[in-house]
Amino acid sequence: MAKRITPRSQDYSRWYTDVIQQAQLADYAPVRGCMVIRPYGYALWENVKEGLDRRFKATGHENAYFPLFIPMSFIQKEAKHVEGFSPELAVVTHGGGKKLEEPLVVRPTSETVIGHMYSQWIQSYRDLPVLINQWANVVRWELRTRLFLRTMEFLWQEGHTAHATYEEAQEETLRMLDVYADFAINDAAIPVIKGRKSESEKFAGAETSYSIEAMMGDRRALQSGTSHNLGQNFARAFDIKYLDRNNELQYCWTTSWGVSTRMVGAIVMVHGDDQGLVLPPRLAPVQVVAVPIWKSDEEKRAVLEAVEKVKAALDDSVRLKVDDREEYSPGWKFNEWELRGVPLRIEIGPRDVVQEQVVLARRDRPGRAGKSSVPLAGLAGAVTDALTLIQNNLLLRATEFRDAHTYEPTDYESFKEAVTQGFARAWWCGAISCEDRIKEETKSTTRCIPFEQPGGTGRCVVCGGEAKEVAIFARAY
Amino acid sequence: MAKRITPRSQDYSRWYTDVIQQAQLADYAPVRGCMVIRPYGYALWENVKEGLDRRFKATGHENAYFPLFIPMSFIQKEAKHVEGFSPELAVVTHGGGKKLEEPLVVRPTSETVIGHMYSQWIQSYRDLPVLINQWANVVRWELRTRLFLRTMEFLWQEGHTAHATYEEAQEETLRMLDVYADFAINDAAIPVIKGRKSESEKFAGAETSYSIEAMMGDRRALQSGTSHNLGQNFARAFDIKYLDRNNELQYCWTTSWGVSTRMVGAIVMVHGDDQGLVLPPRLAPVQVVAVPIWKSDEEKRAVLEAVEKVKAALDDSVRLKVDDREEYSPGWKFNEWELRGVPLRIEIGPRDVVQEQVVLARRDRPGRAGKSSVPLAGLAGAVTDALTLIQNNLLLRATEFRDAHTYEPTDYESFKEAVTQGFARAWWCGAISCEDRIKEETKSTTRCIPFEQPGGTGRCVVCGGEAKEVAIFARAY
Repeated sequence: MAKRITPRSQDYSRWYTDVIQQAQLADYAPVRGCMVIRPYGYALWENVKEGLDRRFKATGHENAYFPLFIPMSFIQKEAKHVEGFSPELAVVTHGGGKKLEEPLVVRPTSETVIGHMYSQWIQSYRDLPVLINQWANVVRWELRTRLFLRTMEFLWQEGHTAHATYEEAQEETLRMLDVYADFAINDAAIPVIKGRKSESEKFAGAETSYSIEAMMGDRRALQSGTSHNLGQNFARAFDIKYLDRNNELQYCWTTSWGVSTRMVGAIVMVHGDDQGLVLPPRLAPVQVVAVPIWKSDEEKRAVLEAVEKVKAALDDSVRLKVDDREEYSPGWKFNEWELRGVPLRIEIGPRDVVQEQVVLARRDRPGRAGKSSVPLAGLAGAVTDALTLIQNNLLLRATEFRDAHTYEPTDYESFKEAVTQGFARAWWCGAISCEDRIKEETKSTTRCIPFEQPGGTGRCVVCGGEAKEVAIFARAY
Repeated sequence: MAKRITPRSQDYSRWYTDVIQQAQLADYAPVRGCMVIRPYGYALWENVKEGLDRRFKATGHENAYFPLFIPMSFIQKEAKHVEGFSPELAVVTHGGGKKLEEPLVVRPTSETVIGHMYSQWIQSYRDLPVLINQWANVVRWELRTRLFLRTMEFLWQEGHTAHATYEEAQEETLRMLDVYADFAINDAAIPVIKGRKSESEKFAGAETSYSIEAMMGDRRALQSGTSHNLGQNFARAFDIKYLDRNNELQYCWTTSWGVSTRMVGAIVMVHGDDQGLVLPPRLAPVQVVAVPIWKSDEEKRAVLEAVEKVKAALDDSVRLKVDDREEYSPGWKFNEWELRGVPLRIEIGPRDVVQEQVVLARRDRPGRAGKSSVPLAGLAGAVTDALTLIQNNLLLRATEFRDAHTYEPTDYESFKEAVTQGFARAWWCGAISCEDRIKEETKSTTRCIPFEQPGGTGRCVVCGGEAKEVAIFARAY
């Protein structure tokens, strides 16, 4: 029985949890802070994986798998890294009934153990670049957790590359940020802002971090992917060296980049409405649901015959689900598949059979406005067109929403107001003291210094000092 | 520089490790007993995954993801389960800098935590069957480890299903055993024997266990997949109940089944030779490698032009790699790709260009016998045909090898000799005392009681008592 979803305007956070649980994307696990990804949520994640993996392979990367357990001593080799991750570690102290000599850390991220392997695999400039990605689970001991957004264990991919020069590493770092932005925009229909993280927000051990930032439905920001130029920090800590063309030993330059199951949370929050999920067609596990409608046995026979034609027309080109269960009414099914975010519904009743047509109902346009009748004859084309329209409309809608809630305050008073309403795009002098003050007084943080800059200089929105860049500030997940 | 591979006849175990490391399938991790799956090995595993996953989905299963950490108390709920797994557990005692109230087990298998979730998700007969699979890493604290065959952490899939009746659960258990056998035979080209495990060899907590058993190149057995009918054991331990059509509460019947990265070890050992890996075309990351051969610049131009034609002809239909590196000689490349088990090599030299042909060299038939010239014109067809021949030949060869080393001893003396030479297929009375004696005196174990039985009765090969079934005995990995 479908329960009620809390309206977004009433309690956004409960709306989010309601949608995820009732659409059966995920559930709470018995261990605090952990989550179970249910089949529907996992099918969505599989589509996210496929979209990313295809792009990684097209840019020359290979997948590999590194161990879950990392010796504690490894984590301690890079000073900033251990500082950043120490409070979040899960530690195995016993194995096979005995206490271990050295405790093992359950990987929170794999720079250290991968660095160790690279130091053995890389000898010469001929071995470079090394372009490896891994799909894995990682564990970070979080105190405040939320389904998909912040869980103790989560699934992600982490790319780890090694290069001969700084320039190549930097090029790779930005290439992967582009890959993430391309995926977010074109597959997830989520507009993102590419930019550099501030010094205080960068990855523990990175030289420079970059991120894509998206605006959720409650106007808060979500970091949706990160790409780090690690400089030679990990190469020095793990002795990753190569002989260059002059036969001299050099440290490598490394990068790392990751996208996680957070992306699923972003999809829920960017597109969802009070009826539930709204999934972008490119990623939806079910793109089209067909619901037959009948009263008499005679109608049933005719309608189900038409459903077979729909199947034959669509089976090869779209992910189609036919819901011909008899224990539920058509209205119940409409609600159910709306809740689960299926982009397009096909309704087929006795009158449609007579007229050799079906009704299409778009999930992104509830009610009459999203309904149209199309002839059975050209159905495959009409459905593909509708899915494209929906995909584009979701992106457009999210972009308009974000832009409508992005402000350019020039003084601190309006800045403080702006971050309660959405993103503030403001001049910042770069001083940590100003950043700290913002954080303390407004609960918003520096999301990124966007690549897109107005040019010239301005006055820092906090201290009024000279500022060379604008930054995006927002309250964030 | 390619090192020498130890010949199989000299030291099979070193041959195995040499091949895996030199073909860059895997490497040892810094933590004892753990392994790193390198890109080439992972690409092979990805193809194994795809072959299995496709079959799971075709039989109605969905993927999901359950947590890595399991409360210690869960493991203790099913008596046999805890008895079997206790000695192998890795235990997290600290998280986020604090000692945990209840230690967490790193999953060795997920019947318990999945059982817990099923008890919440399943209410009515309408919710059944639940057909879920998960791809995951698991940890078992093994003392003696070998790359792919037995590692502390390994990758696998574990299917977990719940049903309304014993019969349905049994049907599912056997269906998945069939799926495994179909994959092993048709994709991995590994002939397997389907059968029931003996009471002493079954899964900790199962009612009945089934397995597919394969013969490796050293004539030892490898259990390559298992499927368990768990009866109501886990349903009772985790309270998985449903309301039946008469509105009465019933315990569910559950199953579980798994295949792991062991399968990669089986592929290495069943098909490999003294030159290295031999990969079945269906699973090979690179199915065809093209090696251009030239001396002069003029030849180079002509040969590389022909290579472009090869690419155009094959790119859509096969996984092709063109090795046009200039720092290595053709002979070096031949060795390298033979070591890495690529099923088919295409050689293109200046003379071939003139004659508008290429040379095909089959990995499964080294030397002259495996070489043939084929015209460039019909290349795609010739290559597809050759790959099919190789795939079939590998299966045929492995089947002949196994059958040639399977004996049917009728007395204990010849039985003892037989298990040093391969599989012994012998009458067994079913008594654990006979099984134990065999294990102690011959180091071989009951692999399975094969489905294929001669019928009638015989005399137990150990005690001479009446026996109703024959079993397969062998030394095993």
